[in-house]
Amino acid sequence: MSILVTIEHEQNTQTILASQGETLLTLLQNNGFHLSADCGGQCFCGKCKVRVTGGGELLTGEDAFLNEAEIANGVRLACAVSIQNDLTVSLPARKQAKILTNGLRRQFELDAIIRKVVVHLPKPSLNDQRDDATRLLEAIGKPTLAMPLQLLYRLPSTLREQDFVVTVTVDTQTVIAVEAGDTSDVGYGVAVDIGTTTVVCYLMDLKSGEFVDTASQVNAQAVFGADVISRIRHTMEQDDGLETLKSRITSQIFELTQAMLVKNNINPQHLYGMLFAGNSTMLHLLCGFEVKHIAAAPFIATQMQAVTVLAQEIGIKFNAHMRAYILPHMSSYVGADITAAILASGLYEQDDLSLLIDIGTNGEMVLGNKDKLLCCSTAAGPAFEGANIACGMGGVAGAINSVRYVDGQIAVTTIDAKPPIGICGSGIIDAVAAMLQMGVVDETGRLLDVDEVDESLATYLYETDEGNAFQLTENVSITAKDIREVQLAKAAIAAGIEVLMEQMGVAVKDIDHVYLAGGFGSFLNQESAAAIGLLPQELIEKTLVIGNGAGMGAVMAMLSKTHQEMATAICRNAKCIELSGMPSFQDYYIDKMMFE
Amino acid sequence: MSILVTIEHEQNTQTILASQGETLLTLLQNNGFHLSADCGGQCFCGKCKVRVTGGGELLTGEDAFLNEAEIANGVRLACAVSIQNDLTVSLPARKQAKILTNGLRRQFELDAIIRKVVVHLPKPSLNDQRDDATRLLEAIGKPTLAMPLQLLYRLPSTLREQDFVVTVTVDTQTVIAVEAGDTSDVGYGVAVDIGTTTVVCYLMDLKSGEFVDTASQVNAQAVFGADVISRIRHTMEQDDGLETLKSRITSQIFELTQAMLVKNNINPQHLYGMLFAGNSTMLHLLCGFEVKHIAAAPFIATQMQAVTVLAQEIGIKFNAHMRAYILPHMSSYVGADITAAILASGLYEQDDLSLLIDIGTNGEMVLGNKDKLLCCSTAAGPAFEGANIACGMGGVAGAINSVRYVDGQIAVTTIDAKPPIGICGSGIIDAVAAMLQMGVVDETGRLLDVDEVDESLATYLYETDEGNAFQLTENVSITAKDIREVQLAKAAIAAGIEVLMEQMGVAVKDIDHVYLAGGFGSFLNQESAAAIGLLPQELIEKTLVIGNGAGMGAVMAMLSKTHQEMATAICRNAKCIELSGMPSFQDYYIDKMMFE
Repeated sequence: MSILVTIEHEQNTQTILASQGETLLTLLQNNGFHLSADCGGQCFCGKCKVRVTGGGELLTGEDAFLNEAEIANGVRLACAVSIQNDLTVSLPARKQAKILTNGLRRQFELDAIIRKVVVHLPKPSLNDQRDDATRLLEAIGKPTLAMPLQLLYRLPSTLREQDFVVTVTVDTQTVIAVEAGDTSDVGYGVAVDIGTTTVVCYLMDLKSGEFVDTASQVNAQAVFGADVISRIRHTMEQDDGLETLKSRITSQIFELTQAMLVKNNINPQHLYGMLFAGNSTMLHLLCGFEVKHIAAAPFIATQMQAVTVLAQEIGIKFNAHMRAYILPHMSSYVGADITAAILASGLYEQDDLSLLIDIGTNGEMVLGNKDKLLCCSTAAGPAFEGANIACGMGGVAGAINSVRYVDGQIAVTTIDAKPPIGICGSGIIDAVAAMLQMGVVDETGRLLDVDEVDESLATYLYETDEGNAFQLTENVSITAKDIREVQLAKAAIAAGIEVLMEQMGVAVKDIDHVYLAGGFGSFLNQESAAAIGLLPQELIEKTLVIGNGAGMGAVMAMLSKTHQEMATAICRNAKCIELSGMPSFQDYYIDKMMFE
Repeated sequence: MSILVTIEHEQNTQTILASQGETLLTLLQNNGFHLSADCGGQCFCGKCKVRVTGGGELLTGEDAFLNEAEIANGVRLACAVSIQNDLTVSLPARKQAKILTNGLRRQFELDAIIRKVVVHLPKPSLNDQRDDATRLLEAIGKPTLAMPLQLLYRLPSTLREQDFVVTVTVDTQTVIAVEAGDTSDVGYGVAVDIGTTTVVCYLMDLKSGEFVDTASQVNAQAVFGADVISRIRHTMEQDDGLETLKSRITSQIFELTQAMLVKNNINPQHLYGMLFAGNSTMLHLLCGFEVKHIAAAPFIATQMQAVTVLAQEIGIKFNAHMRAYILPHMSSYVGADITAAILASGLYEQDDLSLLIDIGTNGEMVLGNKDKLLCCSTAAGPAFEGANIACGMGGVAGAINSVRYVDGQIAVTTIDAKPPIGICGSGIIDAVAAMLQMGVVDETGRLLDVDEVDESLATYLYETDEGNAFQLTENVSITAKDIREVQLAKAAIAAGIEVLMEQMGVAVKDIDHVYLAGGFGSFLNQESAAAIGLLPQELIEKTLVIGNGAGMGAVMAMLSKTHQEMATAICRNAKCIELSGMPSFQDYYIDKMMFE
């Protein structure tokens, strides 16, 4: 007699042949259906719930895992159903997580790196004298998982507090916590993006995959220098420089997180992990690793691999057991922030060829798809962040953030519509594009003299001791030197793109998508970027702004083991091109200096 | 053209066919010859030295690993020899370690759990921008080995201190230390046997496998009770009892070790690991684990598996990186001391069937061979340690340690030939055996009245308020109650042996060897043991005393990864019989109470 089991799963129905006496869990697992069964099918964890029609009586002990509504509704544990006749089974829908960024919506299976498992342990007896640790680990089906000493101290009393019902929190390597009773509803993690400029912390509910809160601040190390190199210099010039920078960032992350926990009434004992993205210098400083060899050729990091430690080992202590996960870097200058942005973009999963660009003081670029990844970093300089620009400033209220030349008139907007007090990166690119359009800057980047231009334009130009200048508003000007800074920066980025294409053996037309990551990318006027030659014109319409790709990638890695592991695979597979040693980069760089 | 390579190895010569261009290392490895190559044949570690005739020129870099005498003698690195023509190769003899105990000599391949590897790292360049950690781990051929944060802090400066020549200390899980230059000559470990009564520390040279020094003391916890149960009671009755007992033993081990290091002029930085054997209560107290559930049925330990942690985590700190390895237990009452004694005896490797007995307050017994291990523990009581005996005492100067009845006369000896002041365990067994021989004790264990015996014997007997007594010397007597204590103790051991044989389905004649472990076993008069029925007479001639089996097993585990792993295999495979729940044990126990 053949027994048929009909399986309903996410709008699909499938019928498979079963053997009499086989458990439903085994049948489902052997046929490729994913069903959680932390205890390995021993009826300890209560995870493998399915709705069954025709499955026979509830087993003793099975009901402990089911509430009344579930029992009424025919819910069973698949491991407790011994197949004796034809059955119909409805599988639960898989939990999904969604990440929204400016322009990109990513959906993936929720499978957080930290999980909580409720187990009803078999009680010890003269016939079952397993030690407490083994009893627990075998019940969750992970007999070889590490069990820290810290947890072993309280384990015997915790197991006995609620009569051998406990909730175990684990990641892939170790037990993180053991709590008496069922505490599976409360579990949180924080994903952190440590930018050189800004630190952002995302507080996540690990069970639902939802954002609970977000907190951000200017990086507390900023007083020691705006960019990576000046932070590194500080560690070399001051005896306690490394320690100071480390404690600045760890204290800041502690305080940002602490404030979110208080605001949301969350017990710090239920915060089990933090996951960090950031460039290699920021994450080295977080850990307290020496950074001086990153600054000078051949640019060697202490540690680029993923690091997993107790959070208290790096100086962040909410409780003794909280874990810290640090994403891996691709190179000293293509860091874990880019690894995370790659995760957020999804480009490593696609057949299509994509270009990912994150423009800051350095411009990091990745060209690739699911088969191949090439990356590089160019020292663009801080022009696009408003530094080294006469009237330059960051993106704050009163900064000119867009400039247009329309009907013979210059029109500017400012952040928060405040009176203009300076100009930020996106404004500078617009301004240079407008000046090219007006014809007051030639293709070599020279700002023309007053007597070289029409009268209508001459009113914008004036001479200073340091060369010509262009009066944008009453108190904001662009100098000839500013234009040179923009030229150097855009040439570095554009030449980097050329080298990646050359190494990949592709042309601009072969690129299907461009992802712009980072704050600057979000505000950039893409037409202006093309006008000054920062990006090829052909790519503009293929461009998608993904906002804080590093932060979103960190959240994805926290909510998905698959993506956390993918981060390591990405770093292992990516080939990093060191531009400083490459003659063709120099050629492209000089070539791209021109405005065309 | 076939190329033949002739291999000379420990008096054997073998010729094998090689492919042109194959490295000598690959050829040897593929043909089952064990040759250390920590770097995986990348010419970084210098371990794969062999003497070659006809191997061509030295490679660049290869000479860095060879001294002049070696070069003159034709020594090469096997990984650097590309086979182009017929060769003759002499392999080095494998290093052996030897452990001597009272009656047993065990020889095994020296392969300590902690190894030091000297590596000449390829230097970083623009073409090799691997981070420092990866560079190091890849050079020792262990890219996934854990690298603690503590080591990463100083890694960049350590690597550069002697121009990328470093010595790496590793075990199977983690990097333990990284030192600049070649420090491979200095590496030490301490094997510790924590007995309830006595603590012994063996300081070992990990490179040579030799004993450097030994230190022992009475267990500093002894003031809180002589046996395991009274120690456990102390942790239950005093709030800080557990902490007190833990700090007593950790301080004592620290001080014993410290004294040995000072005496032998050893830098504590070169002490890389400690390995611990002991019963489950002693090792729980070492770690600070709760022990109260060990004391009452169903006798549950917190953790019986092998534990490996940083030594400072259990409160023993010579340096930040030192590791602590704790051997696994078979049950709450058949602990890691017995696991170690099994290692020392070698019974798990033999076809022959062996019985291992360790008699103390508890008598632990193991019956088995390479296919099967059965074990049990019986509460023999402290009679054999001289406790609960009217004139009983430990084995110190002045204790009667042997008693014989010859030519109608009682003859005693004492430890250090001092005037008798009491009697120790081996003396009591002798005394009871002598009394049986004299006929003053009957088969039920009753000490006869004065008027029941010949006049020549009556002089030894006298009456007290608590029953009869036997005057052994002027000031040392054996009471009727003492004889009952001995009966209970021997019956427990003898009944345990019967249960093991019954469960194994064997008889006394099937047992090929008996190993007596522990201090008591070393001094026991085996004929007396048979006379009182502690051991079957047939086994006496098969008995071998192995002395401190726990200590020797700990040393073996420290010097041999194979034996350390074997300890876990032994515990996984051993079946522990809980005698307290077993009716047949009760029957045997009553039966064995008699003297026959």
